[in-house]
Amino acid sequence: MDQTTKEAIKKIQSFEVQGATQITHIVLKTLREEGEIQSKKTKVQYLKALKSIGVALELARPTEPLARNAVRFVFHYLEHTAKGKSLAETHQILNKAINLFTKLLKYQEQKIAEAGSKLIRRNMHVFTHCHSSTVEEIILAAFQKKKNFKLFCTETRPLYQGRITARKLLKKKIDVTMVVDSAADFLISRTSGKELMMDLIFLGADVVTSGGSIINKIGSFGIAQVARYEKVPLYVATSLLKTDPETFTNRYVAIEMRDRKEVWPQGPKGLKIINFAFDRVPARFINGIVCEFGVIKPRQVASLVQQYYPWIFQPIK
Amino acid sequence: MDQTTKEAIKKIQSFEVQGATQITHIVLKTLREEGEIQSKKTKVQYLKALKSIGVALELARPTEPLARNAVRFVFHYLEHTAKGKSLAETHQILNKAINLFTKLLKYQEQKIAEAGSKLIRRNMHVFTHCHSSTVEEIILAAFQKKKNFKLFCTETRPLYQGRITARKLLKKKIDVTMVVDSAADFLISRTSGKELMMDLIFLGADVVTSGGSIINKIGSFGIAQVARYEKVPLYVATSLLKTDPETFTNRYVAIEMRDRKEVWPQGPKGLKIINFAFDRVPARFINGIVCEFGVIKPRQVASLVQQYYPWIFQPIK
Repeated sequence: MDQTTKEAIKKIQSFEVQGATQITHIVLKTLREEGEIQSKKTKVQYLKALKSIGVALELARPTEPLARNAVRFVFHYLEHTAKGKSLAETHQILNKAINLFTKLLKYQEQKIAEAGSKLIRRNMHVFTHCHSSTVEEIILAAFQKKKNFKLFCTETRPLYQGRITARKLLKKKIDVTMVVDSAADFLISRTSGKELMMDLIFLGADVVTSGGSIINKIGSFGIAQVARYEKVPLYVATSLLKTDPETFTNRYVAIEMRDRKEVWPQGPKGLKIINFAFDRVPARFINGIVCEFGVIKPRQVASLVQQYYPWIFQPIK
Repeated sequence: MDQTTKEAIKKIQSFEVQGATQITHIVLKTLREEGEIQSKKTKVQYLKALKSIGVALELARPTEPLARNAVRFVFHYLEHTAKGKSLAETHQILNKAINLFTKLLKYQEQKIAEAGSKLIRRNMHVFTHCHSSTVEEIILAAFQKKKNFKLFCTETRPLYQGRITARKLLKKKIDVTMVVDSAADFLISRTSGKELMMDLIFLGADVVTSGGSIINKIGSFGIAQVARYEKVPLYVATSLLKTDPETFTNRYVAIEMRDRKEVWPQGPKGLKIINFAFDRVPARFINGIVCEFGVIKPRQVASLVQQYYPWIFQPIK
């Protein structure tokens, strides 16, 4: 494995690069650079080296299936197209596969933004949690259509990614209000009063499961639960390329735990801290998934993924 | 108004003194000191001065009825006992009233700790939010009975009072685990897995309403909502002396909002921040109120308060 891959993996594992989309972009960029480096060898060596790099990149953050599925797409495409081709041609095919997937992500982003922005209506109070580039695109698309609404977000402890959402959307002149995480449930509910309660909630997703539940930033479960109870529509904005193929055979995916120092760097000795990075939002709490196929019901995930993305089930050979 | 009272009010209003019980203790201490100072005057001047001090102290933190009810108890006692008495006797009666209320609080604390600790059973996962001296006493009482349990608490943004809970109980050798606020809902629920989910929740209270709902630290609403849904018993540990007499005529009490700088001192210009200090837990989410009368149902609050504390309805005359 080359230094290029080692550095990329280090960036991903140290959380220097965060978020499913950003991780996927660095994975694809690494595959492209490694393609150049490995193209100085024979075709057999080229494919062998790239595949082991692909496997290493897949494993860099096992809780982010989008990056893994991107790698699988590239190798699936390569396997089906590069048979009997020269090294130079094979290398071109690799780059074409990377370009195709990058374009697919961009195209999906636009489709999701379009479909999601239609859900935002005049004077709505729209709530989101943490930072999701997909939700951000939806909010921007709605704003560009001159829709008048207010955005509310959490600060998102321990790393305050909600402040990224607040800062970015504020710069675009959107009306943004932030609350501490523990205020989310109350704010969403009618208990906070009709003038404050939320009308619509968008969550991003790190993982989509075959049953249509999602894994997203810690706090999402509680938000979805109170939204259900208070009848506030909750939508998950995500590409179905974030579906974890493992969930078709195993019911649950593990919740990633992170370093306690993120929560309380100088905390007292002996204090245990559970630092869940994510939690699970059951499908029954989700009104719809805003994805590349429009607004779908969670139960439609499995068949859409099996029909359109069969290659996510195929490990790199 | 004397400098003593001005200083006490400043401490309360600047949040240098926090929590219903602590505020009440400083209010009673101030009344005692002012009693000394004012006792150099005539009886008429003494009573007039003290009453205006009492009214000022009542208003210092309108969202903490315990302090207000303490003041009302003292003046009610004075009114009924000091008729026709000399200044020296009246001053003695004032001190006696203050002593009585202080003893009442101490006695109630022990009764609540005893009743609450009975709810904690072997190997339970007990959850609490923020810092409540009443909940702390319950946990300590259970621990002193050699009960084996684990305590879980939130960090409690923006001022991290949950860290006070963690630190204090850890010092007493209790097994304490902390999570960020947004992890509370997930941790409590069965979605986090049987080995993690909570068995019992204790919340403190800043205000009890006549209908048996409570006002407590922001985040309490969501915790109570998920506890209800997941069938995890939730108890509020509080003296009924925290009942707000206003709630017998008005349905709601206002939720106090605090300075946005508490949440994000260097936050970007134009960003709105709603910094709710508290939220409201509806009576239907509360399994029981652990109070000086034992473990009661929320609907019993009104009649108990009317029967035992009629003086809370009587403003200082």
